[in-house]
Amino acid sequence: MKELFCNAVVGQSGGPTAAINATLAGVIKGAAKANKAGKIEKLFGMKHGIDGLLSEDFVDLSRYFDEEDSLDLLSHTPAAALGSCRHKLPKPETDPAFFENLIGILKKHKIGYFFYIGGNDSMDTVAKLSRYAKEKGEAIVFMGVPKTIDNDLVGNDHTPGFGSAAKYIAVTVEEIIRDCAVYTVPAVTIVEIMGRDAGWLTAASAIGRVCGNPEPDLVYLPERIFDLEKFFSDLKKAFEKHPNVVAAVSEGIRFADGHYVGEGTQQGAKDVFGHAYLAGTGKALELAVKEHFGCKVRSIELNLPQRCASHLASKTDLDESVGVGSAAVDAAVAGKSGYVMTIERLSTEPYRVAFTPRDVSKIANEIRFVPDEFINTEGNGLTDECCRYLLPLVQGEASCKYQNGLPKFFSF
Amino acid sequence: MKELFCNAVVGQSGGPTAAINATLAGVIKGAAKANKAGKIEKLFGMKHGIDGLLSEDFVDLSRYFDEEDSLDLLSHTPAAALGSCRHKLPKPETDPAFFENLIGILKKHKIGYFFYIGGNDSMDTVAKLSRYAKEKGEAIVFMGVPKTIDNDLVGNDHTPGFGSAAKYIAVTVEEIIRDCAVYTVPAVTIVEIMGRDAGWLTAASAIGRVCGNPEPDLVYLPERIFDLEKFFSDLKKAFEKHPNVVAAVSEGIRFADGHYVGEGTQQGAKDVFGHAYLAGTGKALELAVKEHFGCKVRSIELNLPQRCASHLASKTDLDESVGVGSAAVDAAVAGKSGYVMTIERLSTEPYRVAFTPRDVSKIANEIRFVPDEFINTEGNGLTDECCRYLLPLVQGEASCKYQNGLPKFFSF
Repeated sequence: MKELFCNAVVGQSGGPTAAINATLAGVIKGAAKANKAGKIEKLFGMKHGIDGLLSEDFVDLSRYFDEEDSLDLLSHTPAAALGSCRHKLPKPETDPAFFENLIGILKKHKIGYFFYIGGNDSMDTVAKLSRYAKEKGEAIVFMGVPKTIDNDLVGNDHTPGFGSAAKYIAVTVEEIIRDCAVYTVPAVTIVEIMGRDAGWLTAASAIGRVCGNPEPDLVYLPERIFDLEKFFSDLKKAFEKHPNVVAAVSEGIRFADGHYVGEGTQQGAKDVFGHAYLAGTGKALELAVKEHFGCKVRSIELNLPQRCASHLASKTDLDESVGVGSAAVDAAVAGKSGYVMTIERLSTEPYRVAFTPRDVSKIANEIRFVPDEFINTEGNGLTDECCRYLLPLVQGEASCKYQNGLPKFFSF
Repeated sequence: MKELFCNAVVGQSGGPTAAINATLAGVIKGAAKANKAGKIEKLFGMKHGIDGLLSEDFVDLSRYFDEEDSLDLLSHTPAAALGSCRHKLPKPETDPAFFENLIGILKKHKIGYFFYIGGNDSMDTVAKLSRYAKEKGEAIVFMGVPKTIDNDLVGNDHTPGFGSAAKYIAVTVEEIIRDCAVYTVPAVTIVEIMGRDAGWLTAASAIGRVCGNPEPDLVYLPERIFDLEKFFSDLKKAFEKHPNVVAAVSEGIRFADGHYVGEGTQQGAKDVFGHAYLAGTGKALELAVKEHFGCKVRSIELNLPQRCASHLASKTDLDESVGVGSAAVDAAVAGKSGYVMTIERLSTEPYRVAFTPRDVSKIANEIRFVPDEFINTEGNGLTDECCRYLLPLVQGEASCKYQNGLPKFFSF
């Protein structure tokens, strides 16, 4: 049996987002409430995710329990305030000693609740740990808290962090479209947007359509096979409408033979999880279009600002990110283990959500793709239904506070 | 003699900025005042700069004389609302017919005042036209209004548009630094910033230092020769401080032999003014660093958002951009021709400026470089003096208005 008044630990893992610190603030708020209810004594923050747990490198987060201003500043701060890691856990059956050691560290610090904020790979960590603990009869509660700008975690209507990234992309692409429209010389601008497997972020470039704002002429998602000749013919048609054509492409688009369009420029590199490392989809297409049309071509890779532009965060996203963190603690102290707290959409008009815990083993290592009804029949744009799904997620401006003309951010 | 109650025309030229429409709003405001004073009857906007004048493609801007809300929305809109062009004028002595035709069009529309908002090349246009008109005894007033994110026009303390670009760069680079700091694995991030000749924009990446904010570890401007071995040794030293090194580099940095660092990837391309077309300085360095250190390297080209991110405009910049446009009209109706309205800094603490007309022939085709005292002795960073010069220019947030979570912009 877990001690009734035990400690908790929280970590951040995977790529940072503009909202992962809002979720951390939510976990701190939830723990503060549980502290007052006599459930959680102290809340520790692992430095650099699971690595900090293994090296017992902790920040005492309990001292922020009543620090509303600090938590508000933390919510508006990009990146991962506790630091992050990319540490793929072994399988419990291959390396039981690893798990024994980790559980030993948790018990040593009287930790009864383990919260891990992250994406697909982090949910894999939570799934493995909770399964191991259950098998060993350890009463430690393991709870996942979703975070990914990619919006590709199954069992979630959308993921914390996605709304802010989507807002950054929608606004930046509109500014780019306006910038490109000033000249009369035929030109193609290719905007490369993050998303290895799912096209959610790229889809966000088109949100403006349902409000009468400009949108890219063409949008290509990894959910559809990319064909260069079809792309050229799409561009040709777009040139009939105006001389400045803007195409939004996902970094993860692939040819019919399965090769990534960007592979030509960065061959074979893989990240520690074995995912192909992509960079250069826009550049590869830029060169191809230049050769085919002989016109002015520019490629723009939106790059890291997509995930760290706190200055343009979605208020809806930050509010929900705080909420999901807090709800995760509520569910954990109520006894749920091996779950991940998710966002469920109750209705779009008016927009309403609920936080619902789901079995983490059914969420880890699966990918939620953009559904067929969100992509047009030509495979080069989005449907209004897609834009209406996305629009509520970018509502409200939660831009950071400024001091001396520059953002004011939180640091431990 | 010019008719006392004549028309005026205004055009926008060269690359757009987040503030060029604020300057257009300022010209409209100035013309509205001159209209009430019986000096200017109508104000025409040339579509796509001088090209629109030659084809007599005008927008009647007089109807906005009393439209405060529209002018405010215009001020916060990126790109060039009238459209732009890159049209290098011939020399009057080589092609007098071109000038005769152009002056004929102005006279046909009773235009007594010509305002041209642009950078170096646009000031060359104003210089040529005013010289020609003077020689021919034409009483048309030609007035330049500065615009360039590059901040490299001589005779200006700084240029309209620069402050907003500088703010975007300072904020975005800080967000990137925070994002990169989350991992413990050694990594180099190279941020490529616009600036073909002068390093002003790249310098803006370091502003935060004088406020205690994070800054890039290394900053390289085109004012100093770039040496790859020195860069490697600078990186080695930076790694002694922390594992995540961020370097800001100007797109225009060159080796001792005069070749651009980015030339390797985009050889020989030139724009219509004969400037070498650059893209790939960051990518070239990324590959070099990867080969030398074998560590994780990422390059980020800030690209077009530097000049069109109205959502993060500097209030100081937009206010001054309106002011300089309005002051240009005041000076023109007072009889100044062949001038450009400039921003003069009266003091830094407290920050105060004046708008001062200067002889356009002394400003066109010259480049204002970052001075020696703004660059550190190692040539890999900025001095506090530089940051104190830059800081007032990014003060205040003039972010655009939002509707449905997306920016609301002006269109003619």
